[in-house]
Amino acid sequence: MTANFTITARDGRSRARAGVLRTAHGEVTTPVFMPVGTRATVKALTPAELQEHGASIILGNTYHLYLQPGHELIARRGGLHRFMGWGGPILTDSGGFQVFSLVYGGIADEVKGRRPQHPERLRDMVRVTEEAVIFKSYLDGSRHVFTPERSIEVQHALGADVIVCFDELPPFRAGYDYTRESMERTHRWAARCLATHQQREGANLPNPGQLLFGIVHGGVFADLRQASAEQIGGMAFDGLCIGGSLGANKAQMYEVVDMTVPHLPDRLARHLLGVGDVDDLLEGVARGIDMFDCVSPTRLGRHGAALVRDRERGWKLNVDNAALREDDGPLQAGCGCYTCRHFSRAYIHHLFRARELLGIRLVSLHNVAFLLDLMAQTRASIAAGRFGELYAEWLGKPL
Amino acid sequence: MTANFTITARDGRSRARAGVLRTAHGEVTTPVFMPVGTRATVKALTPAELQEHGASIILGNTYHLYLQPGHELIARRGGLHRFMGWGGPILTDSGGFQVFSLVYGGIADEVKGRRPQHPERLRDMVRVTEEAVIFKSYLDGSRHVFTPERSIEVQHALGADVIVCFDELPPFRAGYDYTRESMERTHRWAARCLATHQQREGANLPNPGQLLFGIVHGGVFADLRQASAEQIGGMAFDGLCIGGSLGANKAQMYEVVDMTVPHLPDRLARHLLGVGDVDDLLEGVARGIDMFDCVSPTRLGRHGAALVRDRERGWKLNVDNAALREDDGPLQAGCGCYTCRHFSRAYIHHLFRARELLGIRLVSLHNVAFLLDLMAQTRASIAAGRFGELYAEWLGKPL
Repeated sequence: MTANFTITARDGRSRARAGVLRTAHGEVTTPVFMPVGTRATVKALTPAELQEHGASIILGNTYHLYLQPGHELIARRGGLHRFMGWGGPILTDSGGFQVFSLVYGGIADEVKGRRPQHPERLRDMVRVTEEAVIFKSYLDGSRHVFTPERSIEVQHALGADVIVCFDELPPFRAGYDYTRESMERTHRWAARCLATHQQREGANLPNPGQLLFGIVHGGVFADLRQASAEQIGGMAFDGLCIGGSLGANKAQMYEVVDMTVPHLPDRLARHLLGVGDVDDLLEGVARGIDMFDCVSPTRLGRHGAALVRDRERGWKLNVDNAALREDDGPLQAGCGCYTCRHFSRAYIHHLFRARELLGIRLVSLHNVAFLLDLMAQTRASIAAGRFGELYAEWLGKPL
Repeated sequence: MTANFTITARDGRSRARAGVLRTAHGEVTTPVFMPVGTRATVKALTPAELQEHGASIILGNTYHLYLQPGHELIARRGGLHRFMGWGGPILTDSGGFQVFSLVYGGIADEVKGRRPQHPERLRDMVRVTEEAVIFKSYLDGSRHVFTPERSIEVQHALGADVIVCFDELPPFRAGYDYTRESMERTHRWAARCLATHQQREGANLPNPGQLLFGIVHGGVFADLRQASAEQIGGMAFDGLCIGGSLGANKAQMYEVVDMTVPHLPDRLARHLLGVGDVDDLLEGVARGIDMFDCVSPTRLGRHGAALVRDRERGWKLNVDNAALREDDGPLQAGCGCYTCRHFSRAYIHHLFRARELLGIRLVSLHNVAFLLDLMAQTRASIAAGRFGELYAEWLGKPL
């Protein structure tokens, strides 16, 4: 097996590293942030815009695509790349996270507007057995059974370049015992995913050469994280995701990453699932993470929060703020995105006040470009041996 | 005074003509369709997209911009071009149409979501005197007084290349007497607009060289249309709009145009206000109209109706239709727009079913591009002496 990931540079003062992930639709230089295209679209943006602003890989959600429009329909259209008009690499998650997080309310935003009137009824909507997860569709209440095998089949049909093992997401407040039990089940599911992937690889898949990433669990418990890292890291995966509960706050998330990364094999790319705040990206890179994804830049864009280089304000500028009414500057001085090259804060403020869709477009695009640019700076700084300086400049503290 | 409009070709079998309108921000070849950017944005589209798809002039609504964000704010930003990032020609209407049509419900769509609960109260919202129109803001109920002088001042502040005289829009069901009375008042207002424009032209206006178009009224009455065409056409305007009530249906609208155009001076550009259906564009061109504007392509786009070359179905394809679920073709075969070059009907159907903003973007862009392309074909056909063939191909009947 040819290695699909090559480390090209390492930081001397941290676990940060730069690399290249080779996929069937091209190379991805890491560390990388991938915009999320939940339902075969990065919300409000076109593939051309994403490409022009430096996106090299995007993420699609297996759970959503399976329910709507359906993986078989997408396969009949020639796969996800062709369906959504994105010619570059795609990663699909396994569906596990969303089957569960929908129940726990963790991704309420993504289903806003379709949420049942009585959230308590969601408790009836998912059940886990050793064999499978049985869940009801948030769209029409129809009953679905997802197994590890099924998740891989669905991801084969979608045809993403990187696919991910099916996992159980334990409730955030699960204690040690349930977290271990769930982790062990996820490990057994990992073996089933890998076997299914290997068996089907010879078949006439729409997108040959798909990479399968394992997923490390263990919640916030150091011994479980180590056990999972060693177990999943020892299997024949093409890369690794850090999933499961990442803790109650950023400090705990960084602890979880620190519990996990040292036990992962160095040679595989590492993806920290669902993380994308500015500080989390830099802290994650410092801890040896190569890949990130998050809905935040487009979600913030829809709500009129622009990412800016302002640590004190959580890296956000509320474009609805009256102080922007006559501000002729761009969202972020020096930003090279289409939005910042052509439009003022005053104009974008007007668009949000007038509830114009163009406002959502322009801020979403800026936010995605902002994180892509931050990651480009990060890669360059690692290559140049000055990641510590970049980290300190952004976070206002030494690495 | 240098002529601002040059006729470059005429059709031998109709009143159709091709020409060039010269403005402070560049030349516009006619016949032309202008996308409408009501509130300083052509809804959901960027200036770059409009330009790439052949838009040469866009329209802004004085009434909306006056209320939000305010013409003075826009002037302080350097004018409407700079504020909205559109470097080409812009036409602003006078505000008259919308002050009134809002009351009559004619543009309900544009204020949807903000309409008062009790439409009858709108009757209290506008009052006409010889001097002025007094109206309440649909945004906050604040009281405003618009005079012909004020409309010109506001349009000078916005800085569009083509500005339009302030007019009264009589209710659709107004009889002959009121229509004549209103027309005569609009004529007196035309003189006041012209005088104000001429007086202020020496002043330090943000965008010198603004062209002032007169507006012809007279409802559906042939003698009034002739009188208005002669009166307004005889004044020192840089171009002419056909406004007021255009009748109850398309047939009556074509009659109104036929009552009016023969009485207009040949040398001035003629704009048929607020018209943009496929058949209306071709019928208008055949009757000697040079300029059109309409919100329809973007409004249809928001509602999932794509413009297609299908006369039988009113030139519309409902992208929500289940028949498109597995349709791999583009919205319109042969269309060169970004949407049709990259995305299938199946994908766009999915986007609308999933209520994704990208769907609105893609269909809006296609629709605008579709009309711009139709007008490019129209101009080329007039120049080539084959407008009759184009008309017959599209409308299925001889010119």
